[in-house]
Amino acid sequence: MKRTLGTCYYPEHWPEDIWEKDAARMVETGLTWVRIGEFAWGKIEPREGEFHWDWLDRAIDVLGRAGLKVVLGTPTATPPRWVVNKHPDMIAVDVDGKPRKFGSRRHYCFSHEGFSAESRRITEKVAQRYGKNPYVAAWQTDNEYGCHDTVISYSDAARLAFRDWLRNAFNDDIDALNTAWGNVFWSMDYADFDDIDLPNLTVTEPNPAHALAFRRFSSDQVVQFNREQVDIIRAHSDAPISHNYMGRITDFDHYKVGRDLEIATWDSYPLGFLEDRVGADAERQRKYARQGDPDFQAFHHDLYRAVGLGRWWVMEQQPGPVNWAPYNPAPLPGMVRLWTWEAFAHGAEAVCYFRWRQAPFAQEEMHTGMLRPDSADAPAIIEARQVRDELIDAPMVQPAQAPVALIFDYDADWAWTVQPHGAGLSYFGLVFEHYRALRRAGLSVDILPPDTRDFSGYAAVFAPGLMHMPDDLKAALNAADAQVVLGPRSAARDAHFSIPNPLPPAFPDLDVTVTLVESLRPDSPMTLSGGGAFAGYREELSGEAETVMTLTDGRAAVKRAGHVSYVGGWGDDAALERIVAMICQAAGVPVMDLPDGLRTRATATERFWFNHTDSEITFGGRTIPAAGVLREAS
Amino acid sequence: MKRTLGTCYYPEHWPEDIWEKDAARMVETGLTWVRIGEFAWGKIEPREGEFHWDWLDRAIDVLGRAGLKVVLGTPTATPPRWVVNKHPDMIAVDVDGKPRKFGSRRHYCFSHEGFSAESRRITEKVAQRYGKNPYVAAWQTDNEYGCHDTVISYSDAARLAFRDWLRNAFNDDIDALNTAWGNVFWSMDYADFDDIDLPNLTVTEPNPAHALAFRRFSSDQVVQFNREQVDIIRAHSDAPISHNYMGRITDFDHYKVGRDLEIATWDSYPLGFLEDRVGADAERQRKYARQGDPDFQAFHHDLYRAVGLGRWWVMEQQPGPVNWAPYNPAPLPGMVRLWTWEAFAHGAEAVCYFRWRQAPFAQEEMHTGMLRPDSADAPAIIEARQVRDELIDAPMVQPAQAPVALIFDYDADWAWTVQPHGAGLSYFGLVFEHYRALRRAGLSVDILPPDTRDFSGYAAVFAPGLMHMPDDLKAALNAADAQVVLGPRSAARDAHFSIPNPLPPAFPDLDVTVTLVESLRPDSPMTLSGGGAFAGYREELSGEAETVMTLTDGRAAVKRAGHVSYVGGWGDDAALERIVAMICQAAGVPVMDLPDGLRTRATATERFWFNHTDSEITFGGRTIPAAGVLREAS
Amino acid sequence: MKRTLGTCYYPEHWPEDIWEKDAARMVETGLTWVRIGEFAWGKIEPREGEFHWDWLDRAIDVLGRAGLKVVLGTPTATPPRWVVNKHPDMIAVDVDGKPRKFGSRRHYCFSHEGFSAESRRITEKVAQRYGKNPYVAAWQTDNEYGCHDTVISYSDAARLAFRDWLRNAFNDDIDALNTAWGNVFWSMDYADFDDIDLPNLTVTEPNPAHALAFRRFSSDQVVQFNREQVDIIRAHSDAPISHNYMGRITDFDHYKVGRDLEIATWDSYPLGFLEDRVGADAERQRKYARQGDPDFQAFHHDLYRAVGLGRWWVMEQQPGPVNWAPYNPAPLPGMVRLWTWEAFAHGAEAVCYFRWRQAPFAQEEMHTGMLRPDSADAPAIIEARQVRDELIDAPMVQPAQAPVALIFDYDADWAWTVQPHGAGLSYFGLVFEHYRALRRAGLSVDILPPDTRDFSGYAAVFAPGLMHMPDDLKAALNAADAQVVLGPRSAARDAHFSIPNPLPPAFPDLDVTVTLVESLRPDSPMTLSGGGAFAGYREELSGEAETVMTLTDGRAAVKRAGHVSYVGGWGDDAALERIVAMICQAAGVPVMDLPDGLRTRATATERFWFNHTDSEITFGGRTIPAAGVLREAS
Ligand SMILES: [Zn+2]
Ligand SMILES: [Zn+2]
Ligand SMILES: [Zn+2]
Repeated sequence: MKRTLGTCYYPEHWPEDIWEKDAARMVETGLTWVRIGEFAWGKIEPREGEFHWDWLDRAIDVLGRAGLKVVLGTPTATPPRWVVNKHPDMIAVDVDGKPRKFGSRRHYCFSHEGFSAESRRITEKVAQRYGKNPYVAAWQTDNEYGCHDTVISYSDAARLAFRDWLRNAFNDDIDALNTAWGNVFWSMDYADFDDIDLPNLTVTEPNPAHALAFRRFSSDQVVQFNREQVDIIRAHSDAPISHNYMGRITDFDHYKVGRDLEIATWDSYPLGFLEDRVGADAERQRKYARQGDPDFQAFHHDLYRAVGLGRWWVMEQQPGPVNWAPYNPAPLPGMVRLWTWEAFAHGAEAVCYFRWRQAPFAQEEMHTGMLRPDSADAPAIIEARQVRDELIDAPMVQPAQAPVALIFDYDADWAWTVQPHGAGLSYFGLVFEHYRALRRAGLSVDILPPDTRDFSGYAAVFAPGLMHMPDDLKAALNAADAQVVLGPRSAARDAHFSIPNPLPPAFPDLDVTVTLVESLRPDSPMTLSGGGAFAGYREELSGEAETVMTLTDGRAAVKRAGHVSYVGGWGDDAALERIVAMICQAAGVPVMDLPDGLRTRATATERFWFNHTDSEITFGGRTIPAAGVLREAS
Repeated sequence: MKRTLGTCYYPEHWPEDIWEKDAARMVETGLTWVRIGEFAWGKIEPREGEFHWDWLDRAIDVLGRAGLKVVLGTPTATPPRWVVNKHPDMIAVDVDGKPRKFGSRRHYCFSHEGFSAESRRITEKVAQRYGKNPYVAAWQTDNEYGCHDTVISYSDAARLAFRDWLRNAFNDDIDALNTAWGNVFWSMDYADFDDIDLPNLTVTEPNPAHALAFRRFSSDQVVQFNREQVDIIRAHSDAPISHNYMGRITDFDHYKVGRDLEIATWDSYPLGFLEDRVGADAERQRKYARQGDPDFQAFHHDLYRAVGLGRWWVMEQQPGPVNWAPYNPAPLPGMVRLWTWEAFAHGAEAVCYFRWRQAPFAQEEMHTGMLRPDSADAPAIIEARQVRDELIDAPMVQPAQAPVALIFDYDADWAWTVQPHGAGLSYFGLVFEHYRALRRAGLSVDILPPDTRDFSGYAAVFAPGLMHMPDDLKAALNAADAQVVLGPRSAARDAHFSIPNPLPPAFPDLDVTVTLVESLRPDSPMTLSGGGAFAGYREELSGEAETVMTLTDGRAAVKRAGHVSYVGGWGDDAALERIVAMICQAAGVPVMDLPDGLRTRATATERFWFNHTDSEITFGGRTIPAAGVLREAS
Repeated sequence: MKRTLGTCYYPEHWPEDIWEKDAARMVETGLTWVRIGEFAWGKIEPREGEFHWDWLDRAIDVLGRAGLKVVLGTPTATPPRWVVNKHPDMIAVDVDGKPRKFGSRRHYCFSHEGFSAESRRITEKVAQRYGKNPYVAAWQTDNEYGCHDTVISYSDAARLAFRDWLRNAFNDDIDALNTAWGNVFWSMDYADFDDIDLPNLTVTEPNPAHALAFRRFSSDQVVQFNREQVDIIRAHSDAPISHNYMGRITDFDHYKVGRDLEIATWDSYPLGFLEDRVGADAERQRKYARQGDPDFQAFHHDLYRAVGLGRWWVMEQQPGPVNWAPYNPAPLPGMVRLWTWEAFAHGAEAVCYFRWRQAPFAQEEMHTGMLRPDSADAPAIIEARQVRDELIDAPMVQPAQAPVALIFDYDADWAWTVQPHGAGLSYFGLVFEHYRALRRAGLSVDILPPDTRDFSGYAAVFAPGLMHMPDDLKAALNAADAQVVLGPRSAARDAHFSIPNPLPPAFPDLDVTVTLVESLRPDSPMTLSGGGAFAGYREELSGEAETVMTLTDGRAAVKRAGHVSYVGGWGDDAALERIVAMICQAAGVPVMDLPDGLRTRATATERFWFNHTDSEITFGGRTIPAAGVLREAS
């Protein structure tokens, strides 16, 4: 497949007389795509019912006639002031009960029926007008659901909707809810669904079953909100529909949103993310401050390939310093090109740079673009031109199934968040450290949703930390023709967050029982015989399954029966390296031992090498320059 | 006295058909006591006035017939949802003005008259029904007053009650209050008691006299609440009444509550406490992560012996990992036995393990019990059986007065909290560090309430940090036939938190004046000649009393006249060791120099040795195994 | 000019029969000034309209007849309870929407019209009564505007006033505001000024233009509040009027307040400030814990000389340990004298010690005074007497213009606060580090307000971080006969916080363009060729101006054309030392290399040397004792 480039453009920010020149310059830069409109509600409908389409008509026309394909966003991420005036209670409420007011963006609660109606109305208007526009080649719903912690709202609207959601989930049977949640515990039984409040501001922690149900509800509200827009757009347009996700936002189930769409896109800000959400230690943050974490973008690329059912883009690619991280350095020369090729190597159809020209005003005035505010070239555009040139005679990048799979489950992330058991433990962190271990071993990885039942083609499947595992998932993994790695905390809870009996993991044909769990101080890892340690979290394992790795005190660390292994703790880097090596050997998958910061990915047509460090690396006879990319025929 | 074991049981959590088997297994484990009912309001009265006694009748019957003695709790720590629906304003309000909602436990404000009436009503019902039940051998009021920061509430109910409390305290004379508090200072005079607000959300700190009065009021509300339940139970039952206190909760005066009761019980969670409230440094936390602080439990044992006027239990003994600390490791093998014997050595009548079987649901599903959720033995039950066997032919443990006494005063703790003067300084910390120094010296210690006036039998009395000392306490200490140690901050405030004139300590026959006080950066201790330092807090001393210890710059550090010494600073470990040695020498009390983690306690019949480390210790010819207990005839 | 001493006295705190003795003792101590009344509203008017003047009449009379000059404060910093009862909504609201209640001081919102009327009423009453009193030699309006974060209020009153302020600023043209702020960015356009809310509690950051406007408004409210009091006092009295500012309070424009007054006074608490606001690292905090930062007081002295248009005092001089810092140690012997002479060396007319006698009650009972609570001498009075004696035959201290000037701009401080771009970066910090570098070089410094247009007499003018520079300031600096140092971030924003085009700094005759900016992790400074580094913040510079300093990778760090230099980053200590040396060499100003903690200041008549360390220092043949002062004829 031929890969393409694009950018994000805000015609409403610039005098109309420079649109034409901008469009020509985009085309000259080799861009195919231009996303517009996702924050323009106030320009389209400045007062209720008063629509100004003319400027948007002309903008799409100018861009389309220049040869660009338009991705048009529904503008619901930024409801204008008059919408909030009309629905004062549409704003979300934070966990402390404070309103989240107008004055920036995403100021709405997903559960507010009045705002949902406004969302459908404006979506209908936009879809009607541009559904058949020849230049509108794709759609985007809203923008970055969940960014700025906006999935979860403690508003009155959310409270009422949560009660209805529970009523429906429990077939209007309050006793069923009380039993499922164990409300007998502290006399928390409810006589009616209308007794149920949101799980914030309780004296001490709320029932974790209550908290988890609220997170599942909150996710469903996003899915529902998105689906309403999709249904409207589909009625007017045949162009594919996407949503643009933000990195490490796990508060809603992206797979469920993704299944209502044709394309998943995400926002890749490697330097900002390293500072504010990767969770790297200070030394890694220092070392990669101008390159970004070597695995964080790749993880999301592989994740969104799954979310998009194979079709995915980078909709916003960091082009230089951003405005929003604690520290905002400039990338090393070469990194914008590297990030672009890395996305292509992982299967991206398109990479769009955010944004075309740096805005001189408002919240993101310190966010660089492809152009400076004075329209001169910024560094990113130079590297984009290099990619443009390289794409001309590059071979197609054809996807290939990876040898190993890693299951990522949003529900498990909520479960760990509700009950980490040890300070700082997170499901995302656990899965990401497994991903890093696999990537350090030179492996390409497919991320799979938890409802996968067909694992054919994979030599190994890793499923760490999947707190709830339905029986048919256990059965499918048990039947798979692959090495399967479980634990820690796999199948530790039933569907409503109780500990099952028999005790976890209760996996078919695997005689392992977790008899006790403990969380560990960061300064107190438990070492493994042969190297590595369990850090943060450990389980006591009993059962007849073979012990294949032990703590230095002799107790079981990893047990195995047949093709299924159970890991009774959170492995540190060295432990995970050993586990990956052990499993891959059993699976017949060759591994490498990549130097720090070097990563590789195989496609059906080529193998890519990415050097994320600021020094040249030589590995296996190849030399990859600092911040450089090497392509080999595979 | 023969010591006994017990457990905490929640029949309402389990199918009725296993109660019989549970009871038999408890008896087989050597348990005497079983506490029930304290969270069962919702099961007893699921709707207002609709009482379901049958299940509780049967549970008590099953347990009693098996040979167990029941401790029955009043269920007021967990008012059901309908109680809150009936009294929406009964919930407490936090310091920021946020409601502390239904959904966990302890969701009530002690000042709410409507809820107090509900508390009296349900207590009356329970006492009526079970007051003469032969199996109900003891009572517990509510549970863990103050846990989850629940003593202090900034509700409307608290505001009104505080005004009444002040009106009463000042005989309805607002000018007396204004004068006592120094309200002239910033034009804070009140014209009426109804002008007085709660001391939260002020622009900068409130008047410390105002803040201290509010803390005294808040404590009195707990005493009053408890007394109401006690009066009702007494009218129906002859069994002893207890309350179950939580470790390091100092927001109400436990002595005052204790005087209305026959028995004090407390909850001993050594590993959880080390993580979340001991205040140990990181190295100590790491070293004792699986054993708990070597002095923290002993301190509370000695404290609750005083609170219970000699009769006290451990009502909840940690059996394995808990769910609520930042990190929740498993105890070293042997520690459950050690903790049990340690409690007996300090005089506990009974030690009850929390809880019988781990719950598979709700907030504490990760809290281990004596049994696993699947009813298999958990590690704790094995060690409980060992204690059961050891108790059979062990001699009685007979109490003996300790050679040294340490005064602990809740009011002083509030005073330091209101005005620490230096970041991180706390009265509890000061007293606890004195306690540790005494225990490191091998001493048994009696903790005394501040209204003690008879000090006979003690060779030394330590009274650090007692910010307000009434004249008759000064006189009693002055008259005591014991070495008396005062300072820092002793007698530094009058009854309403003003600095007295003459300046502190103004102690009879002791010519010492504190002329200036200063708090010190943690990195800037002031060293003492001969070793040790004052850390955090120091006072400039003048007067004719003999200077017996000096700063390295020659200024007075400790002064003494006759049997009374005044310490002008917060001694670090080395300084406190020297001070204890000096005082004990003067008092004729021999001291030891115990290795780290070894502690001893003498009773009338035996001397106990406890090794809190993970290695064998040899001391004075004895060898005590890791996590081990040694008993010697005394 | 002959320098004078004084103190702050609260006759209302003490029995009237000791006033006479106090006054005599003040005179004996060599004091000239006594400030009274600023917190006495409740004593003057305990109930609305009921005035008690008698005590204040007598107090002024006693003090005046003893020979003291009274500074009389308007009492508006402490409105009595009845004022708040009358205007419940006069209290300020914090950023989270919480009320800032009665119970301490400064509990009013500057925008509340009802309270403003009360302020004018009580000011009128006080001015009427004492305007012609022969003993009232000066006035003080209110006290410490902005202390305890009290400039900014999110109350309803503030919201309404802000809308009016904006309506006025934009000539009632909402489109002008929308354009100036770039509200098109996220559909934030307003249809009406009444749509505009305060910039708190937004989902993510508000528009920085919105946030900056709110800060400007908030400052103007203080100026207006103060001016109302000044106008009233002037109508009744010829005595000079002052306000008493607090250290490092930058939330309002002190220059603007100062221009309505005759004298600026400020509160110098060197030890408290070092702990809570200097921003020194831990090692500096430890080293100077008993002396205070060697540059912080001097900076404020020079600042308030500018604010007071040459006339300034220290109104509250720390005399010993205070009560309000995280740690409150006692000063080294000699420091109270040193601080007093240091203030005189920088031009103070008077230094008044806070307070006469330590209060035994209320919020500041732990704040030392010149006397102990029992009226005995405290250490400070001894050193005050030494200064008294030294003043007798000391020569006059005559001011002299400094060779270098440093511009300090409150508006720039707000701009950096609104948009620091990197965590921890502050304008105050940037300017203060420049000040320190100049002082380390032995230079006397004049601080100038940003509306200075006449720079004659200065050899060098430093203007770092001045985010908005009006064209006439650029022109004046360009025309100045001085070395001019700009950057970083100089002229980076237009008047409404947009990035200008052409890009910054767009300085006449200086071909430098900032093409990209980045913020740096604290562990990642960028080193300069020849020593030093840019830390935290850096700019990419282009243009034809000469590059006079480079990064070690060769890129431009400092560029110069003629007498104007632009520094493209935040220099660390070593870099600033080099820059100061380079500029001073060009300017013909000799520099020194002072040892750590030694500082000097030249006046027209003498040169002063101050040793802020605890060891004797020998420098250039002079020996200055620890905590000592050396005076040389200049
Ligand atoms: Zn974005
Ligand atoms: Zn408990
Ligand atoms: Zn002050």
